[in-house]
Amino acid sequence: MPNKNSAPGLLPELQNKIDQKTKPPGSLGQIEALACQIGEIKQSLKPRMETCGLTIFAADHGIARARVSAFPQEVTRQMVQNFLDGGAAANVFARTLGIDLQVVDAGICGGEIVHKELINQRIGDGTENSIESAAMSLEQLDLALARGVDIGKTAPHDAVCFGEMGIGNTSAAALVCHKILDIELDDLVGRGTGVDDAGLELKSELLGAAAARTKRTLPANDALREYGGFEIAMMTGAMLGAAESSKAVLVDGFIATAAAVAAVHIEPSCCRTLIFSHLSGEHGHGTVLEALQATPLLALDMRLGEGTGALLAWPLVKSAAAMLNDMASFDSAGVSGKS
Amino acid sequence: MPNKNSAPGLLPELQNKIDQKTKPPGSLGQIEALACQIGEIKQSLKPRMETCGLTIFAADHGIARARVSAFPQEVTRQMVQNFLDGGAAANVFARTLGIDLQVVDAGICGGEIVHKELINQRIGDGTENSIESAAMSLEQLDLALARGVDIGKTAPHDAVCFGEMGIGNTSAAALVCHKILDIELDDLVGRGTGVDDAGLELKSELLGAAAARTKRTLPANDALREYGGFEIAMMTGAMLGAAESSKAVLVDGFIATAAAVAAVHIEPSCCRTLIFSHLSGEHGHGTVLEALQATPLLALDMRLGEGTGALLAWPLVKSAAAMLNDMASFDSAGVSGKS
Repeated sequence: MPNKNSAPGLLPELQNKIDQKTKPPGSLGQIEALACQIGEIKQSLKPRMETCGLTIFAADHGIARARVSAFPQEVTRQMVQNFLDGGAAANVFARTLGIDLQVVDAGICGGEIVHKELINQRIGDGTENSIESAAMSLEQLDLALARGVDIGKTAPHDAVCFGEMGIGNTSAAALVCHKILDIELDDLVGRGTGVDDAGLELKSELLGAAAARTKRTLPANDALREYGGFEIAMMTGAMLGAAESSKAVLVDGFIATAAAVAAVHIEPSCCRTLIFSHLSGEHGHGTVLEALQATPLLALDMRLGEGTGALLAWPLVKSAAAMLNDMASFDSAGVSGKS
Repeated sequence: MPNKNSAPGLLPELQNKIDQKTKPPGSLGQIEALACQIGEIKQSLKPRMETCGLTIFAADHGIARARVSAFPQEVTRQMVQNFLDGGAAANVFARTLGIDLQVVDAGICGGEIVHKELINQRIGDGTENSIESAAMSLEQLDLALARGVDIGKTAPHDAVCFGEMGIGNTSAAALVCHKILDIELDDLVGRGTGVDDAGLELKSELLGAAAARTKRTLPANDALREYGGFEIAMMTGAMLGAAESSKAVLVDGFIATAAAVAAVHIEPSCCRTLIFSHLSGEHGHGTVLEALQATPLLALDMRLGEGTGALLAWPLVKSAAAMLNDMASFDSAGVSGKS
């Protein structure tokens, strides 16, 4: 996946450099492929991969009012406060792993939260309910994408993680993937934060009704406008902006992958910068990753979002680059090769 | 696996603490199970998990002279020099991830290497060829185990990784697992550093001849003495010593898992301290992990040894403890629970 849309470029030189390292050929497995991808992203045989930042995009979803989630809508707002207070899983992982964290209000319900560390990029007070109408207007979509591009482009890090918070957003992500990839909706609808069997049946019905409102498949922009969230659209833009500025993008779970699906359909070349970090426990993520021919680095059965899967993959990315940059060669270390 | 031999202990309290965290129940998947295990190892609801050290045990194997490996025996000695020079994969990963590293000469061929940072615990100048006779004497085994126990016990870290270097040691590990676990030898013999098809056939034959020298199954001590290496025996001791002093032990790949098999058969209670870090690409590792009912954290298709898999799992261990210790609860953060 990482290289499918790119010319061979530096790949032969990168692989050759790795094959000279003091280890049996191929014995670092996925770390070798990852090092090659990093070298290609940075267009360097000695790519800098020292700093990483996480941006969490938060927004609310009209569809949440139709009871597609196990948690009430106000949790989006409460969790944003929790991020700002440093108490969420994403904060804890980011601190532990030396990753900068910022939070963007892309459009949560209940009006603006005034806090010196919250970045206000509000597109609206939550989206419309996509069962009844398009989630957002064309102007709102364009604004969300453009602000995302700017965030991705100006991030001062070698690698970026994008996380999200938005009650109802597994529904939005499922619908976006369904319309862009033409995967059966049933293969994409999961329990999200944990709906029970009855809740899952209801969610499935409601999403079916939402999907029936439009054509079977849609171009990425239309899918985002009809069914996306402000945080998903802004994350799509951020991935495009990060790719444009040659940053490694650590793609988190199901919702971030929906943003990635939209991003690669808007600009296929951004694919080479996407590092799929974690196979989520959310039903549907595996199917979407397969459609993208992506092999994730981790499979820890997490399904929390917030960028948690991407955060935990950062040490692997940093280690892969360090291997490429700092490990000795058979020659330099005076170690004998294979007999 | 982690808890199978332990009384419930703190587990209900640990799980309850995790269930109060600001996230859907269970949504951190394996990280939650890992946090519980860490709490149980440290017998604390707020376990300290800040420091980690890697000890690489290096030794040579008589069986290597029978051409079971793709690399010549002198590579063990050359790689020890590479570790001391800081150029191997283990050095690079350890530096990147903030892990201390030390190297122990448990008995490499060619006499002592004098270097101020090399820890001399030489049991002999390599083992005997186990195709023809026992790899080591009872005195040598006891000495290797005792020195390992001391290293494991006195390590000043919250968590320890044990790595190894020894040309021929996938053969030793396969034989040790075969004799202790009664798994078919063919399910355990792999390509190691990369023998070709003819080499694999020869390795299989040679190991079959070695296995035929003794009874179908052996107690752990006898299996180590007949077929083990000095580094494997010392690592077994180190795991026992680390367990005794309540350290988290990050178990690396196929060879470290063979040492773990011996350790849990010598002292079953040490099992609760073992964190299986990585499913190796070496044929046989998955089968042995299954026999131990162990679920590894990573599966990156690496097969290098040196402790590289354990090193890459350390950020997950540290993050799991941080989640348990520092993440906010629904109550403390004022976040609403499931509807």
